[in-house]
Amino acid sequence: MTASPSDPTAAPAGPRTRSRADRARQVAEVLRRQIASGAFPSGVLPDERSLIADHGTSRNTVREALGVLRDEGVVERRQGVGTVIRRRTYEHTLERLTGLAETLSAYGRVSNEVRVADVIRPPREVARKLCVPDGGQVVYIERLRRLGDDPLSLDLTYLTTDVGRPLLDADLAGRDLFSLIEESVGGPLGSASVTVHAVNADPGTSALLATPPGQAVFTVERLTRLPDGRPVDLEFLRVRGDRLAFRAELDRGTGVLDSPTGDDR
Amino acid sequence: MTASPSDPTAAPAGPRTRSRADRARQVAEVLRRQIASGAFPSGVLPDERSLIADHGTSRNTVREALGVLRDEGVVERRQGVGTVIRRRTYEHTLERLTGLAETLSAYGRVSNEVRVADVIRPPREVARKLCVPDGGQVVYIERLRRLGDDPLSLDLTYLTTDVGRPLLDADLAGRDLFSLIEESVGGPLGSASVTVHAVNADPGTSALLATPPGQAVFTVERLTRLPDGRPVDLEFLRVRGDRLAFRAELDRGTGVLDSPTGDDR
Repeated sequence: MTASPSDPTAAPAGPRTRSRADRARQVAEVLRRQIASGAFPSGVLPDERSLIADHGTSRNTVREALGVLRDEGVVERRQGVGTVIRRRTYEHTLERLTGLAETLSAYGRVSNEVRVADVIRPPREVARKLCVPDGGQVVYIERLRRLGDDPLSLDLTYLTTDVGRPLLDADLAGRDLFSLIEESVGGPLGSASVTVHAVNADPGTSALLATPPGQAVFTVERLTRLPDGRPVDLEFLRVRGDRLAFRAELDRGTGVLDSPTGDDR
Repeated sequence: MTASPSDPTAAPAGPRTRSRADRARQVAEVLRRQIASGAFPSGVLPDERSLIADHGTSRNTVREALGVLRDEGVVERRQGVGTVIRRRTYEHTLERLTGLAETLSAYGRVSNEVRVADVIRPPREVARKLCVPDGGQVVYIERLRRLGDDPLSLDLTYLTTDVGRPLLDADLAGRDLFSLIEESVGGPLGSASVTVHAVNADPGTSALLATPPGQAVFTVERLTRLPDGRPVDLEFLRVRGDRLAFRAELDRGTGVLDSPTGDDR
């Protein structure tokens, strides 16, 4: 196969012809990542001519790429200004165990609407994961989290009672659970197992998170343990995909962190 | 606040009344995670009576929870059998740098339709991330990945020419890029920076991945480096959210892996 250094997004000698939609998606991926990583601090994208030069592609492809991002709600066209960023997606690290508010406090005021805070008998699977005996109780906290005025996530949290009871009288509306738990246990948390799904929001979730129906959301399960390996905190988060992204640094070697309690699945 | 050990999903003395949709979502989160982690090897969910007991909730709440999972395409009701799992979501680890095929080969045959494999002049931002000088070239590979007959992801890969050129003659349809790259460079890869977004698929992506319009998909950017820190492989993946989830083990301490090249944003 030969070099075709003219238009990098034009169909080269591949096994099938690529459509303009293919090329536009290719441009949109790069732009989305630049926007999320803060590459355009002015909040305005480079003009069409610059984008055509940067991506070595046609005007129509650039326009279609901007259309993809517009449909996703990432950018909008503003008369006399250009293509402006509507909403930035913030990056939350998965490199270490960090509360969302710790990441987001740099970008605005994080507040929580406490929907439930009580002692309950948990679903059997939740009891199993928290090593709570049959018939035992847990503390259940449900919060709607906002960044500024915009809903960001709906957080369902199950805590073992020893760790959770003191939190029922704490400032759940204003503070991160991690720091409250660390005050409650008198020391740092240990490790966590995290699983991240991408799903279309059901109507109830869309309404709560103030998104269009079917908005792509992350559902995150996070099981957090004390340094001695005992699980104390099981959370199910629904996070707006248009507000948050996850970031991690990986290594080709063996797993760098092993769950102290082994496989909890 | 007092204990209400009867129905854990019923509205306790929280600041506002929760709807049945709230309680159904709570049940659905737990079930989705159980399905993804392989808790129902028969492929059939426990019957309604068992689910009511396990979750300590009402029949109507269980039915609404199953409705949420049905709308997501996770389960379906089959006459005379019960609620069966339509499609399992597989978990891909973010604990270490692993190719998707390495994870998925346990579940079926992974194959790739090679859409493009050529030498191109990359978009400026791609050149910057791969430390390719202005006007330089890269190898571009675009593949549609399938697990069995079902499309799983669309992978756009930019490789530095020294690493990528030998791959143009390799078995791109049958093999994982990571193992091909490691053959090409004669040793293991080093580290990678990964960012994961959740977006609604544009019409072109939906068509390629054979999903309903607007399906929630992950868009993954992965920049992979050699052990000496030199970036050689920049990938943009679109992965069906109903087929794959990401999993990681985190630590409350400082970052466990630092990018050898520092912050590449």
